[in-house]
Amino acid sequence: MSRSPDASIAIAAHDIAAWHTHTDVLVIGYGGAGACAALEAAACGAEVTVLEVASDGGGTTALSGGQIYLGGGTPIQNACGFSDTRADMEAYIRIAAGANADADKISAYCEGSLEHFDWLVNQGVVFNPEYYGGKHTNTPEYQSLTWSGNEKGFRESQAAKPAPRAHKPKAFWEDGGATLMATLKAAVARSPIRVETDTRALALIHDNGRIVGALCRQDGELRAFGARRGVVLCAGGFVMNREMVAKYAPRLQDATPIGNPNDTGGGILMGIGAGGAAINMSEGFVSVIWYPAGAFCEGVFVNEQGQRFVNEDCYHARGGHHCLNQSGRKAYMVVDSTIFTEPPLYAAAQVKEVGESFEELERDAGFPEGTLAATMATYNRFAARGEDPLFHKHRDFLRPLDKPPYALLDFSIDSGIYYPSFTLGGLDTTVDGEVRRPSGAVIPGLYAAGRNAAGLPRSGEGYASGFSVGDATFFGRRAGRTAARNS
Amino acid sequence: MSRSPDASIAIAAHDIAAWHTHTDVLVIGYGGAGACAALEAAACGAEVTVLEVASDGGGTTALSGGQIYLGGGTPIQNACGFSDTRADMEAYIRIAAGANADADKISAYCEGSLEHFDWLVNQGVVFNPEYYGGKHTNTPEYQSLTWSGNEKGFRESQAAKPAPRAHKPKAFWEDGGATLMATLKAAVARSPIRVETDTRALALIHDNGRIVGALCRQDGELRAFGARRGVVLCAGGFVMNREMVAKYAPRLQDATPIGNPNDTGGGILMGIGAGGAAINMSEGFVSVIWYPAGAFCEGVFVNEQGQRFVNEDCYHARGGHHCLNQSGRKAYMVVDSTIFTEPPLYAAAQVKEVGESFEELERDAGFPEGTLAATMATYNRFAARGEDPLFHKHRDFLRPLDKPPYALLDFSIDSGIYYPSFTLGGLDTTVDGEVRRPSGAVIPGLYAAGRNAAGLPRSGEGYASGFSVGDATFFGRRAGRTAARNS
Repeated sequence: MSRSPDASIAIAAHDIAAWHTHTDVLVIGYGGAGACAALEAAACGAEVTVLEVASDGGGTTALSGGQIYLGGGTPIQNACGFSDTRADMEAYIRIAAGANADADKISAYCEGSLEHFDWLVNQGVVFNPEYYGGKHTNTPEYQSLTWSGNEKGFRESQAAKPAPRAHKPKAFWEDGGATLMATLKAAVARSPIRVETDTRALALIHDNGRIVGALCRQDGELRAFGARRGVVLCAGGFVMNREMVAKYAPRLQDATPIGNPNDTGGGILMGIGAGGAAINMSEGFVSVIWYPAGAFCEGVFVNEQGQRFVNEDCYHARGGHHCLNQSGRKAYMVVDSTIFTEPPLYAAAQVKEVGESFEELERDAGFPEGTLAATMATYNRFAARGEDPLFHKHRDFLRPLDKPPYALLDFSIDSGIYYPSFTLGGLDTTVDGEVRRPSGAVIPGLYAAGRNAAGLPRSGEGYASGFSVGDATFFGRRAGRTAARNS
Repeated sequence: MSRSPDASIAIAAHDIAAWHTHTDVLVIGYGGAGACAALEAAACGAEVTVLEVASDGGGTTALSGGQIYLGGGTPIQNACGFSDTRADMEAYIRIAAGANADADKISAYCEGSLEHFDWLVNQGVVFNPEYYGGKHTNTPEYQSLTWSGNEKGFRESQAAKPAPRAHKPKAFWEDGGATLMATLKAAVARSPIRVETDTRALALIHDNGRIVGALCRQDGELRAFGARRGVVLCAGGFVMNREMVAKYAPRLQDATPIGNPNDTGGGILMGIGAGGAAINMSEGFVSVIWYPAGAFCEGVFVNEQGQRFVNEDCYHARGGHHCLNQSGRKAYMVVDSTIFTEPPLYAAAQVKEVGESFEELERDAGFPEGTLAATMATYNRFAARGEDPLFHKHRDFLRPLDKPPYALLDFSIDSGIYYPSFTLGGLDTTVDGEVRRPSGAVIPGLYAAGRNAAGLPRSGEGYASGFSVGDATFFGRRAGRTAARNS
């Protein structure tokens, strides 16, 4: 066999002429999910091999900001003076995960949050008990604790007492993910886990429906890696596979894919080929970034009808979701001169129009008469009282916009502004990482975690920073453990 | 083998102890897609058996209004004085199918539209060259031609010259679907096609990856039906399988499923079990109905922010889509006394509030001050000039609402108003009905059409009446033909 096989067809074991090697648990992908799956499987006594297509581990986790969503009263939360409960964390995540939420996964995740914190610390991850309270996309220096989602949102804060839950491993600014992966890789290096890089898994191998290995390309050859107890798919999402994005998540097509170049959905395709169900495939994180400076949250988003559509102090993926959903995908922010003099970190939005009054802005930007101006009059009248009855922006960000000149900033996706995106669909798994068929039955010997699975984060609109790395590391461990115990 | 097998696992042919029967082409499901697949396969010289789980054919097509989306200058369009071109039809459907559009299918459908009309007529379908021009959900009497989508919408009419394209077989009011199926079944009865009712297909049978039959339950026994040339899956959508809806299309969960009780996704699951990719699974038709009377299109939809969100003369599934997408899923219609005295056919919306002025309505219904009243002032000012710069409602329906008292009708899904829904996801197929793996490779011997496939209609927001029956009959024929020619 020399041609690469179709990833979406599992190969029968009796068609494998010779096995290259055998191990107990074969982990495919060496990012956050794969590292944790391997560590936990090894801790359960299994012989573990991790395969990585790149020349080193890290995956998309290493490229991320490294925030891990943890709560219920972690040592870092406590040290920074925040009280939090599992119940509040769970109530919040249920809202955040939206219509597609997996209640069992949310429950397990919240129940295990403190233990997971301890486990990470035991692997060598250092958290710095400093809190950053600004409106930002990550902590700007070495602080470990910050707000990262819509916890203080109107609906969310009614359902659950807000708490900051993003825990970034101690590292400067966006280096959290690289630091996390360096630490986890050091833990792997101390263990008997075998890592094989430059190795691309091509298709799963089954024996009468049970998954027993993977066919890989390594050193220019096709090699069959056997797995006595199971295969754990941890090979990332599919945002870099633009054909898959067009087919499964067309809403993401015009946004900018973020991740590593190997986020091409191979693990998901292999899982489908073994009979697994792929769910939540149309969902993704789509963001547009207007803060920091936090003052931009005092601005007012409007669509081409001159209507507001979101609380402007929300998490940036909620903003991106709504900006992309407006008719004609047009979205603008009205700011006054107080805001506009703040240095924008990311939001290099182009100025579409300026005006000395909202009426002038409305007219010159081509909004129908009585739309933008009426929106702003109502907004300002309520903001003066510290109220936002339409979208319930927090009073910290409510200030009448009354310092002309006013500007209209273009946040439309066709303006060229940055809309980062990644996928949130994957294999349907049990809370223990077993891959399910469409009927719900599990496939013996097959496990998945990270963005190969549909996990904790199911909705861009409700996303919070830390959901993905939290999910990948937490459920990666569970998948590794389940595989190791499979006999 | 006595237990029912898991539909989502294809069975190996060598596990079949005895075959019940063999045919060339096995069609699973006897609705619009199945009937047309069978007729075309038989016309190509294949021996054909149709299996139907119910005690008679008809499927969801027989329950539908029977409209078939056809254009490009059909004899009925011409007789009623409308000119239409393939190019206009294709440009319109491309917009209607949205981000998920399958350009190849749209192109083939438009290219084949006139031939498909002739074919239907040759099967015995009678179209009545009478046109109904009112705003309705189907022609109210025996007329065959009417408008059925958003052809006259602002964006659509800029891209394509509008034409009415819904062709209902001659039948009273909603009897079009039953009449269509009676006619197609009569054509099947005149043919050598064998129909076996009360027969439930349970799982596909493969021989080294090629699909060679289906295991069925019939007369209380498991029986293997062999198919020498192929199996065509035409077993309908999955809206009646509430577990699948929750998993794949959670947005439809609170709407009312419409279809026949066997729309449980079995065909889709069998296709997945054979390695097929399921796509567009999160999409569905979700409607709420406010017209007729057409006068209700003069009303103004608002959300809980008192903002308009859609042109109120749009097709009802676009209205349903947007009503369901508003924050808190709240949607209301403002009407004046001129409208409210019209008899509503479906729209038994409850009156949430009445008022002598918009300010009173705003206050009493709890909208923030300066929201609903500002919306209505702007709407009325432009409507007096025959303009709707916000949503471009057609001037036929633009009239200032100025005849108090005013009423606010509740169209929110939690008000109890009827939100019918069905699924638009299914197996990924080629334009000839071959089922594709996630990699794009086709599965030998496996075909799908109707709502077992992701076909022409891909978006509830862009849906038009006639897309589903048009798609099922047109691509059902193609799938049957391809299967018959497979050797």
